[in-house]
Amino acid sequence: MGDYVVGVDMGGTNVVAAIVDSENQVLSRKKISTDAEDGAEVTISRIADAVREAIGKAAIQPEEVRAVGIGAPGPLDPETGVVIFAPNLKWNNVPLGGTLGQNLGIPVFVENDVNVGTLGEYELGAGRGARYVVGMFVGTGIGGGIILDGELYHGPSKVAGEVGHIIIKVGGARCGCGNRGCLEALASRTAIQRELEKRLKRGEKTLLAELTNGGKKRIKSGMLAKAVATGDEVTLRVLKRATKYLGIGVASIINFMNPEVVILGGGVIEALEDYYMPRVQKVVEKYAMPQSMSGVRIVSAQLGDDAGILGAAVLARRRLAES
Amino acid sequence: MGDYVVGVDMGGTNVVAAIVDSENQVLSRKKISTDAEDGAEVTISRIADAVREAIGKAAIQPEEVRAVGIGAPGPLDPETGVVIFAPNLKWNNVPLGGTLGQNLGIPVFVENDVNVGTLGEYELGAGRGARYVVGMFVGTGIGGGIILDGELYHGPSKVAGEVGHIIIKVGGARCGCGNRGCLEALASRTAIQRELEKRLKRGEKTLLAELTNGGKKRIKSGMLAKAVATGDEVTLRVLKRATKYLGIGVASIINFMNPEVVILGGGVIEALEDYYMPRVQKVVEKYAMPQSMSGVRIVSAQLGDDAGILGAAVLARRRLAES
Repeated sequence: MGDYVVGVDMGGTNVVAAIVDSENQVLSRKKISTDAEDGAEVTISRIADAVREAIGKAAIQPEEVRAVGIGAPGPLDPETGVVIFAPNLKWNNVPLGGTLGQNLGIPVFVENDVNVGTLGEYELGAGRGARYVVGMFVGTGIGGGIILDGELYHGPSKVAGEVGHIIIKVGGARCGCGNRGCLEALASRTAIQRELEKRLKRGEKTLLAELTNGGKKRIKSGMLAKAVATGDEVTLRVLKRATKYLGIGVASIINFMNPEVVILGGGVIEALEDYYMPRVQKVVEKYAMPQSMSGVRIVSAQLGDDAGILGAAVLARRRLAES
Repeated sequence: MGDYVVGVDMGGTNVVAAIVDSENQVLSRKKISTDAEDGAEVTISRIADAVREAIGKAAIQPEEVRAVGIGAPGPLDPETGVVIFAPNLKWNNVPLGGTLGQNLGIPVFVENDVNVGTLGEYELGAGRGARYVVGMFVGTGIGGGIILDGELYHGPSKVAGEVGHIIIKVGGARCGCGNRGCLEALASRTAIQRELEKRLKRGEKTLLAELTNGGKKRIKSGMLAKAVATGDEVTLRVLKRATKYLGIGVASIINFMNPEVVILGGGVIEALEDYYMPRVQKVVEKYAMPQSMSGVRIVSAQLGDDAGILGAAVLARRRLAES
């Protein structure tokens, strides 16, 4: 009798279900479109089908699968498995864990996707060996996960870790949340894009003009990497500020909660790791208190695209062990 | 046989030792000068004498006292009782707990003074009923204590809770730590004093000119309260900014760690409670994420001058129960 779990990474566009063995090896994957516009019930039923297909592809028996872990967007209740609010799915109070569990007939454990990413890095990636870890993922926004003494910290309302909305610049750029000066408004890919698009419109000379076909295409992380590689001055100027802001956010968190490891991940960091990591490190060293910073490691995420499925598999195993 | 503990509040100027019964009533107090210039050994020996005198004043027997709790400044190791570094005492690696324990012949538990204040408020004051609490104390600096699931959170290096050094204004006022834009550099009494002294020098018309005898006396919290009571415009303008900064710092902490209660204490809050609390509340409501803010209470500290001795007594009882 085998000992497998399913890790499910659920995003606004795609869902990936993977069979993971007890050594954290991925045996098979099945990717489907989320198609959230079909409604929550249809999407969940299709996730169940994807899980079954992944089991088939792995050539194992359904009864060898002990549990499903799933990382989902939005504030959710990890105890009840209810997704409280996920704007990009148009989900409100959807009992994801319960519905999927009934369909599959095995336990389903649900967790916020950023927490799942942090958990995966903590157990299998950049956070190994530490007990106090903060994960920060820089993409459209900036999400965060907190691990204290080896456990995910949710806070009493289950919404802890909103690192994107610590305020680092009173009166600074307007944030999607309505306030000004949030870390996310200054250092997310969205913030970087906005600043660069402004400069493109002003006619500043940059490789991005060509890469975006004169501003017609959206600036992607890969384009930023290309621009950095060619020493594009406009891009470098904007990224210098973004890394400064990110470093200041990391320093604030270190001063407040004194972690052992801060893991930086997400599309921006993945594409620009060599540029980002030494610069962020330098800013943090300047802004963190020496006694808080002593021994702290700032590292880039290691699991890449697999962070979601591996983290969800780790979640499933941990929650099984607790139950 | 009685059941008493000693709570010791150790500051740079004075030390207060108090006998506290099992109902958290203070039976007696003994206050001495710290006189740190005499050296750590002499000071600790005098603290032991003060404890003995407090026992005598309470008319109880030494063997009825089960333990001493002591709140001390500076980063320290609560497990070993060693004060690592306390600049205002000129202490470096002083084994406060061990030395005092040997002198008195009973267990001595040492904790950072801000953590002790937070613990006291958590068990006996403004934090009662909550399990996730942040204490922020606004005085010369801004110190913080964190309670998670009913326990003081120290972090792996024992220096968590440096709320004064979260950065809320990139490029803002210079802080004592050498950086710019720390909460402490913008919202501590020192920051308020500095701003008001600048305005006094510029000749701005304010009641403080009279209260400080033309800038000769230092601006104290009580003077600020008087100026506010008379509607002094210059003072109100400076305090409006300070409350905004403080509220933004509180909001960042709420967004990051999702506590149930934030307790504001210290000299500035005590003197200006009616002015501060509603204003800080309003700023926090604007800057905290609605889901993080939901149900969070922002309250003023209740224990006043007794926070140190009562918190230390609570510390002693909790550590006894654990040991």
